[in-house]
Amino acid sequence: MSLSEGEIIGLIRRMAGGPAPGLEVPIGDDAAMFHFSGGLALLTVDSIYEGVHFELDTHTLSDVGWKAVAAGISDIAAMGGEPSCALLSLAFERPPETEEVRSLAAGFLECAGMFGCPLVGGDVCRSGGGLALTVTVAGVPCAGGPVLRRGASPGDAIGITGTLGDSGAGLYLLKKGEDELRARYPLLVESHLRPRPMVQAGCLLAAAEVTAMEDVSDGLAADLGHICDESGLGCEVDAREIPVSVEARSLAAEAGLDPLGWALGGGEDYQLLFTIHPARFDKAVAALGLHGIPVSRIGTMVAKERGRTIVTDGGARELGGQGYEHFC
Amino acid sequence: MSLSEGEIIGLIRRMAGGPAPGLEVPIGDDAAMFHFSGGLALLTVDSIYEGVHFELDTHTLSDVGWKAVAAGISDIAAMGGEPSCALLSLAFERPPETEEVRSLAAGFLECAGMFGCPLVGGDVCRSGGGLALTVTVAGVPCAGGPVLRRGASPGDAIGITGTLGDSGAGLYLLKKGEDELRARYPLLVESHLRPRPMVQAGCLLAAAEVTAMEDVSDGLAADLGHICDESGLGCEVDAREIPVSVEARSLAAEAGLDPLGWALGGGEDYQLLFTIHPARFDKAVAALGLHGIPVSRIGTMVAKERGRTIVTDGGARELGGQGYEHFC
Repeated sequence: MSLSEGEIIGLIRRMAGGPAPGLEVPIGDDAAMFHFSGGLALLTVDSIYEGVHFELDTHTLSDVGWKAVAAGISDIAAMGGEPSCALLSLAFERPPETEEVRSLAAGFLECAGMFGCPLVGGDVCRSGGGLALTVTVAGVPCAGGPVLRRGASPGDAIGITGTLGDSGAGLYLLKKGEDELRARYPLLVESHLRPRPMVQAGCLLAAAEVTAMEDVSDGLAADLGHICDESGLGCEVDAREIPVSVEARSLAAEAGLDPLGWALGGGEDYQLLFTIHPARFDKAVAALGLHGIPVSRIGTMVAKERGRTIVTDGGARELGGQGYEHFC
Repeated sequence: MSLSEGEIIGLIRRMAGGPAPGLEVPIGDDAAMFHFSGGLALLTVDSIYEGVHFELDTHTLSDVGWKAVAAGISDIAAMGGEPSCALLSLAFERPPETEEVRSLAAGFLECAGMFGCPLVGGDVCRSGGGLALTVTVAGVPCAGGPVLRRGASPGDAIGITGTLGDSGAGLYLLKKGEDELRARYPLLVESHLRPRPMVQAGCLLAAAEVTAMEDVSDGLAADLGHICDESGLGCEVDAREIPVSVEARSLAAEAGLDPLGWALGGGEDYQLLFTIHPARFDKAVAALGLHGIPVSRIGTMVAKERGRTIVTDGGARELGGQGYEHFC
């Protein structure tokens, strides 16, 4: 059965449940009003489009809903903040079926709920082509936050949470379309379809006085490039220190690929990349370790003149020099 | 010349000028941080798509940019709030030309600037088809706000600012495509291409203790229907009291049309529709009159059982019964 606009909003409103704590005007009015404790709001917006950011032959609608809000929550985490609430602008090429809206909203609400980020507003309309989701997330900085991209100094250690390349490896599996292979690497597939924003890590890192921070959404090379750009610095990364999971290494060996490709260019890992005074690095590692979050030191920030390099067993080369910026 | 994503953001960032007062983290980071004075934020999001909400043969890109942010600011006005800042998620089917981005951003920033609503963040990407803009606007309630849709009581007067139907008449002119006709009705065309959110009126009405409020974005019949829905009431509207401009009446006479059609179903007038205790109506009229904003009383809220009616010279009929809700 096809739904009208009102039915779509009504369905999502019901699925979202009662008003969230602090929400003074719930879904159904012209705007949402949210009581921000400290009077400060972090705001971010991200759009994802069918055929550009996802394909419906590899992603369920629930995965798409999850991914859309995860990206916004990750942006808040990357500022050293915690999400407060989200708004969703949803556009379909044709009137959607009930089950389609339900699946999409379920994935969205599952991820948002896991991070204490209620859906507080939005709109629904017809798109110019394909499914499109734009998510706005508002949040508040944790103690020590917000952490910008521009605060790094020469000599700062470069750190990364978790492992890199799992999402890229998962996308490889999804595109390959071999069920047997995919079944043997469930964690990699999950990493791509259901990325987990590192909210707790972002708060802990803000408290640990990191100097710059960003989530890895475009691949390590591009994202570290942003910190270099904004801080006016260069960097030296040791490829051998980049944390790659056992699963990604194993799949890469099987497929005859270099797992570093997924780590450097894969994107959507949503791990946190940060810089910190080297004397504080061990303390930050310990603080995250208490919460079971692994941290690796992968390099050092250097003066701009020294460029951006990555050292591998085969020698040093320019970081990110192999690619170029695509339109989207 | 085609622009890369970074060039598009850079161009808009430059056009937006220096950081706005109160903006603690400007464009170029993962999220924007804005200092809200009272710790309260109004948040709204609206998307517009090429081929759905606008056509590029009737709208310039500058008009499109204006329209996108005007809709969000109008939502804040309709809550009895003032806009604080806006985020823009912008998607193109193909890499845009510099002049295209410039034109679009100019219209956006002109409207946003007129209402003290700085652009503080956003993203740019490729769309699934056509041009798409999603605008998030954050704001704060004025004294007496926020005003919801659900606060109307039986017996409340129904009021409207300005005139209705001008935007619908303007769209008629644009679709007609006759330059001579269009040149004779510049105000109607302007009403459609450059709608003015009623921010000052919204604040004054909040202070005047209106009981419910909404902006006329879908046409009077649909929007008054929302207030009826949310307040659990019916309404009686006197069609002869609906304010229609001299220009819209003149064009309607010339075209052999009923101008009421534009007022009831035309939408995008962005006038404020409100309900208020009848004893307070004259005071509200006087308060807005001091600022040159005309107000008309067009009807009365009634018990739900009495339905939703509109009285014309030809008798009473059901309000909105002539149409139905489209998908978008």
